[in-house]
Amino acid sequence: MNFRLLSRVLGVICLLIGGSMGFCLPFAFPSLANRTHLPAAESVEHAGIQGLVLSMAISMFVGAVLLIAGRTRQSHKPLFRKEAMAVVGLSWLLATILGALPYYLSGTQIWNGRSITFVEAMFEAQAGFSTTGATILTDLETPEVVPHCILFWRSWTHFLGGLGIVVLFVAILGQGSAGKAMVRAEMPGPSKEGSMPRMQHTALVFAGIYCALNVILTIVYMIEGMTLFDALCHAFGTMATGGFSTYNRSLGGFDSPLIEYTTILFMIMAGTNFTLLYLTMIGGPKRLFGDVEFQTYVGIIAVATAGIMFFGFRAEDLGFETFGQGLRNGLFQVVSVITTTGYGTADFDRWNNFARGSLLVLMFIGGCAGSTGGGMKVIRHVLFYKILRREIELSYHPRVVRLIRIGDTVADDPAMLRGIMVYFCLILGIFVASWMMLVTFEPSSTWGYDASDPTSVEDSKLDEKLLDCASAVAATLNNIGPGLGVVGATQNYAGFSQGAKFLFVWLMMLGRVEVFSVLVLVFPSFWRRT
Amino acid sequence: MNFRLLSRVLGVICLLIGGSMGFCLPFAFPSLANRTHLPAAESVEHAGIQGLVLSMAISMFVGAVLLIAGRTRQSHKPLFRKEAMAVVGLSWLLATILGALPYYLSGTQIWNGRSITFVEAMFEAQAGFSTTGATILTDLETPEVVPHCILFWRSWTHFLGGLGIVVLFVAILGQGSAGKAMVRAEMPGPSKEGSMPRMQHTALVFAGIYCALNVILTIVYMIEGMTLFDALCHAFGTMATGGFSTYNRSLGGFDSPLIEYTTILFMIMAGTNFTLLYLTMIGGPKRLFGDVEFQTYVGIIAVATAGIMFFGFRAEDLGFETFGQGLRNGLFQVVSVITTTGYGTADFDRWNNFARGSLLVLMFIGGCAGSTGGGMKVIRHVLFYKILRREIELSYHPRVVRLIRIGDTVADDPAMLRGIMVYFCLILGIFVASWMMLVTFEPSSTWGYDASDPTSVEDSKLDEKLLDCASAVAATLNNIGPGLGVVGATQNYAGFSQGAKFLFVWLMMLGRVEVFSVLVLVFPSFWRRT
Repeated sequence: MNFRLLSRVLGVICLLIGGSMGFCLPFAFPSLANRTHLPAAESVEHAGIQGLVLSMAISMFVGAVLLIAGRTRQSHKPLFRKEAMAVVGLSWLLATILGALPYYLSGTQIWNGRSITFVEAMFEAQAGFSTTGATILTDLETPEVVPHCILFWRSWTHFLGGLGIVVLFVAILGQGSAGKAMVRAEMPGPSKEGSMPRMQHTALVFAGIYCALNVILTIVYMIEGMTLFDALCHAFGTMATGGFSTYNRSLGGFDSPLIEYTTILFMIMAGTNFTLLYLTMIGGPKRLFGDVEFQTYVGIIAVATAGIMFFGFRAEDLGFETFGQGLRNGLFQVVSVITTTGYGTADFDRWNNFARGSLLVLMFIGGCAGSTGGGMKVIRHVLFYKILRREIELSYHPRVVRLIRIGDTVADDPAMLRGIMVYFCLILGIFVASWMMLVTFEPSSTWGYDASDPTSVEDSKLDEKLLDCASAVAATLNNIGPGLGVVGATQNYAGFSQGAKFLFVWLMMLGRVEVFSVLVLVFPSFWRRT
Repeated sequence: MNFRLLSRVLGVICLLIGGSMGFCLPFAFPSLANRTHLPAAESVEHAGIQGLVLSMAISMFVGAVLLIAGRTRQSHKPLFRKEAMAVVGLSWLLATILGALPYYLSGTQIWNGRSITFVEAMFEAQAGFSTTGATILTDLETPEVVPHCILFWRSWTHFLGGLGIVVLFVAILGQGSAGKAMVRAEMPGPSKEGSMPRMQHTALVFAGIYCALNVILTIVYMIEGMTLFDALCHAFGTMATGGFSTYNRSLGGFDSPLIEYTTILFMIMAGTNFTLLYLTMIGGPKRLFGDVEFQTYVGIIAVATAGIMFFGFRAEDLGFETFGQGLRNGLFQVVSVITTTGYGTADFDRWNNFARGSLLVLMFIGGCAGSTGGGMKVIRHVLFYKILRREIELSYHPRVVRLIRIGDTVADDPAMLRGIMVYFCLILGIFVASWMMLVTFEPSSTWGYDASDPTSVEDSKLDEKLLDCASAVAATLNNIGPGLGVVGATQNYAGFSQGAKFLFVWLMMLGRVEVFSVLVLVFPSFWRRT
């Protein structure tokens, strides 16, 4: 492990994060935030500014220290695989810690009178950077509780996360052979590795399309009636497939079909492979609709929406009254979950069990490879299905060779196919282990059970602990945000214990930064100097 | 596909099953069944005898027809892989159908006044042969409802299933190269293939130990106070890791610590590799305790029991009052679930969520390879863990070669390791697909919801549908028996719709007969003549 190099790279990342905090300061001004400011909110807003400035200073200082510690007389030395993995893993960890400072130092309150802890601040920062959008801030709309500049920082972390701090870094600095490994880690999915100039080109295209769509969506939102502040925050949340809103009722707070359908369209785009969007821009829509992953992605959305509308109308718990209402709510929620955005417009936790179950399964599907969407990615599921099908055939025709194809291309690299299975198995292992950990250590009081009064079990939601824990792990590991039950559409993660929140920080990171770059951090042999 | 050969083999199986039905007839006599016989029960018992005799006749007839259809002038031709898979898959299917006849033709009632349907009879037969022990017979103790000879047939299917009809077949007839594939399918687990004489030897050892343990346990049970009838039925249920009892309260009906600890000991043996038991008998216990799989198996039992006792004492829902009570109930349930037996002595569904979650996870672990236990098998989990660990190391040290070992033996056959991952992925796929199917098509009335009265949702258990369905799929796919909620320790599968029962028939078969031999049956190319 080349620690000097590592230190230098991390230093630059600190400077970038610290610098970007400056963008949030203007939103401390009431005129920009454009919401009613009560006099009592003034001092809160000042605390927000103070927190941001202090965080900037700390980030800059840490960055400078790391840069100095990493200085060397050696000429440019390339990053190797291990260093690249360490950079990716550690920079996310560092970003989470630095990103937590503004919340913590400004004394943000998760609800009136209850200040945020550092673990909770890390949770919120990680939920931002990993574009999960899970939140513990329960009251977003009262300026006395959460300053506007901090609210902007919260959405701004989505923007940074979606862009992939490191992709940006690669595109700007072109760090030799590190690029490959980094872009692979940042743009998850089983894509083929290209040459370095091509990677840089891809990264630039990615960044370009991403920024352009953010700008377009902001303008569209403003035309549809949002303030600049709301439009920016929701554009960040949508395009990064994050899901932070500035309203307690999430995007449902606007109660506007126009805004919802706009968001659906842009969420679908955000979950599509950006290279494919680029090629479509150049070569027309034929390329888009001929892509197997995109076809499957749209197909799943259509089938799931149809299913939820059909079974939703059966109204076991709460049905839709009209077809239009069903389409609007069903489609929105399906797209929101499969793209791993996690916005809510309806309390889907009160839908019937088919809908709840489907949404839970959709969480594990995720967007397309090379998009900002999280989750396991559609293409992996396509390959997974093809691999299993072939294995069954091989069991009785051991000598028949049938190549696995995606569209017209042969995708039969044994290492890649093994990688798919390893990935599914790893996610399965992480999911089960985290679920058991949460079930074991999360106190029952989270579900409203009072240990001193055994009869309170009747009124509590303790029966749903197993399912709620599973959905919380699924929603953080796949970077969705809301889950079922205590983390359902109308609730949030505030009720969990500090330990659980710490677990979620890691799960969100594991989901966002491809598992390997995070898992290796705890292997001692990884840190050995070679 | 050599259909003549297939037909011949299936014919022999029909004759064996038909013949073995004769063993159940003596238990129609009150003196042997040894339970209070009410006069009203006489006619029911007669119906039972009638049903059994009729079933025997049908089985014999079908067997004869198949044998005649399969006759050929060709000299002995070996079975190939495809034929062997077809034999395994189809013989289980045939056994299920023939095994269902006695229930159906005797007009067995699942509770007083509600006769069994054919799908339900298939469910009960499959639960017997697959040694799952899931039941839909709600009232076992009233002789007017279920005749004793049918009750004995029910437990007898456990004995046959545990022995592995086909293993017996291999041992007796030594069907050439088919043996390998069959024994592999019948004795699941990633064991190395041996030569044919060795396979026959293994099968004989397996059958010998199995029968001997059944006899010993029957005698022990009788010494401990059971009648011959109860002792035989429970010995079959224990040694086959089945779980059918002759009491509504399962083994808890005896309320005897002695019987429970005896059962624990024999369940543990039934879940141990029988070859290992044989070697231990010859070479002493050193071999047993040096075996990695056995160590892990016992380790998991110890840790899970300790965990359940520790967290069970916290008494969220229902704790144990004394240490002895905790050990007795906790250990029994852990062993019952990990060996996939499924006996119950306590209502574990009312234990706290840690215990419920642990039992759900234990369902997927299962016994050791080469035992009668179902599930995924301990050794697969050991290898799974080692594979994933190595994959993580390979991600940053791609050129480091570290061999996967089990104890002192190198287990690094790439095909086997790939097989493990494929198996986990297949089980995952089957689990999720079946779960969604059950959630989608099982009506809410199963959970006490009345569609005509929307307010009944408050009183219903509909909130637990997702978890209950997951546990029902897990409990049948892994051949356990009871699950959580509507299929919990004090409930059974009677409440499910016919369609769900039909799904469970397949899941139990998939769990027992290694997935491939069942999955291939639906592939058209499998049936092509080559």
